[in-house]
Amino acid sequence: MPTLTSSFSERLFDRIVDTDSRICLGIDPRPSAHPLTHPDRFGHDPAQVAKAVVYYFQAIIESTQDIVACYKLQSAFFEVLGVPGLIALAQLLADLKAKDIPVILDAKRSDISSTAEAYAKAYLDKGVFSADALTVNPYLGMDSLAPFVSEAQKQQKQIFVLVKTSNPGSQDFQDLKLADGSLLYEKVADRLHDLGKDKLDSLGYAAIGAVVGATHPEELAKLRQRLPHSLFLVPGYGAQGAGSKDILPAFDEEGFGALISASRSLTYVSREDDFADRAREAAEQMRDEINEVVEEALF
Amino acid sequence: MPTLTSSFSERLFDRIVDTDSRICLGIDPRPSAHPLTHPDRFGHDPAQVAKAVVYYFQAIIESTQDIVACYKLQSAFFEVLGVPGLIALAQLLADLKAKDIPVILDAKRSDISSTAEAYAKAYLDKGVFSADALTVNPYLGMDSLAPFVSEAQKQQKQIFVLVKTSNPGSQDFQDLKLADGSLLYEKVADRLHDLGKDKLDSLGYAAIGAVVGATHPEELAKLRQRLPHSLFLVPGYGAQGAGSKDILPAFDEEGFGALISASRSLTYVSREDDFADRAREAAEQMRDEINEVVEEALF
Repeated sequence: MPTLTSSFSERLFDRIVDTDSRICLGIDPRPSAHPLTHPDRFGHDPAQVAKAVVYYFQAIIESTQDIVACYKLQSAFFEVLGVPGLIALAQLLADLKAKDIPVILDAKRSDISSTAEAYAKAYLDKGVFSADALTVNPYLGMDSLAPFVSEAQKQQKQIFVLVKTSNPGSQDFQDLKLADGSLLYEKVADRLHDLGKDKLDSLGYAAIGAVVGATHPEELAKLRQRLPHSLFLVPGYGAQGAGSKDILPAFDEEGFGALISASRSLTYVSREDDFADRAREAAEQMRDEINEVVEEALF
Repeated sequence: MPTLTSSFSERLFDRIVDTDSRICLGIDPRPSAHPLTHPDRFGHDPAQVAKAVVYYFQAIIESTQDIVACYKLQSAFFEVLGVPGLIALAQLLADLKAKDIPVILDAKRSDISSTAEAYAKAYLDKGVFSADALTVNPYLGMDSLAPFVSEAQKQQKQIFVLVKTSNPGSQDFQDLKLADGSLLYEKVADRLHDLGKDKLDSLGYAAIGAVVGATHPEELAKLRQRLPHSLFLVPGYGAQGAGSKDILPAFDEEGFGALISASRSLTYVSREDDFADRAREAAEQMRDEINEVVEEALF
């Protein structure tokens, strides 16, 4: 049982050991993607659709909780369902909290000064939307990240800053070559490293992690060197085309330090009533694929 | 009366003429900043606090609607109030919609593919959180902006993309010098210009605007040249230290094309019951200061 003073990465480490899994299961509700949650079934009543979404993902959590390390809730898919969607978000967050399973809110927030403080308070303090970790966008600069970092450190929580994302368009700005020869995303990484390196937990990790797409294995390897104290949240596995070999460079020498996230490819495998069992099967398969390459590399 | 097929900038132009004002009044609820909305008054009951916030800003809207061009709601300050805060957001959006006053939601969203589509749908389509314009963060690249642009164009709405922000930390990444000699924020501006220039409304404006801080008058001038078809949303006036001379370069040759936004310096002037009258006085003064420098420059 993790103590109240465990950091996010310490809690995560325990979960990875307990579940033998480096998977972060992404909860991206798409009501139309399954007959049980389809808006047509409820005459498009938003409250009923949102409630069905909660049941759907509660079943998936129940079915996968012993084989995934943590969950990631994608805020956009709740926000688009209106007020009932945000109630659904709060309910799933509360469920995971009650189970003491680490949960990341993927909301990619960013703002400055007291506005950034308000976001940090909303998602990393104690309110109904608070999670154990939050994704954050760095474009506004280091002072915009400071309130998130300080709240994360205070609450023993975590931020994951967008560094090099999994989409093709990540090359437009993130890959721009700077006058000093480095790339923008490398500069972002270096600033995050400087910011986090003096406040590490017992595992050598900082409260400042990085989002790095699985679709760029070479960059993953370079960033693992540049950010030795950052947990990596690695999207792009499965649906976006990356495979198990691609994500190996995300891990540290102990096979820790990265979460491989997948959403649709786990949670919307079946359009039948067996969706939760099929989610478990898909997660087991993904877990084994990842463990195989990681263990092969370690031994 | 604007027709249903007016673009955001066309509606805004009418409002600027009607109100003789280039102000965007920022609604950033800080319940503790006024006794009428203070959480202590309601035993910290979130629903009552949120309701008081709605009354407070309804009074301010009532008192200022004929002297400001539009309103900007800061999503973070509603999100931090939990579910009642988001209901308050929906109520104020509905009030402004009923009055046919353009409203910008300052939520600085960003994500990729279907997740970006969900955000675009949530804030620019027809749901309870939909506004006339949305602020967006460009770090993820042009494909991340595409769903927002396409929804904005389809709905005759607007996005404002963060280009050069008003905070000191905006120099950390936005001002980085690239290998080709330009700065990152200039590159962002150029890509936005390319994206918007072929789809202009009757006033010559695109659905893609830019957020440019009032705290950087020289950059404002350069960006006005680089982005001739973009409305500018200009924060940083008042509380952040910029004055009326600083924002002049944001306007086009007709004195149109920019909204100067201010929040705290208008809405939290008084801790007494006269807060709405004092908001009007402060807005009138700001309106006159801005009109004076703009009209002096035009004639």
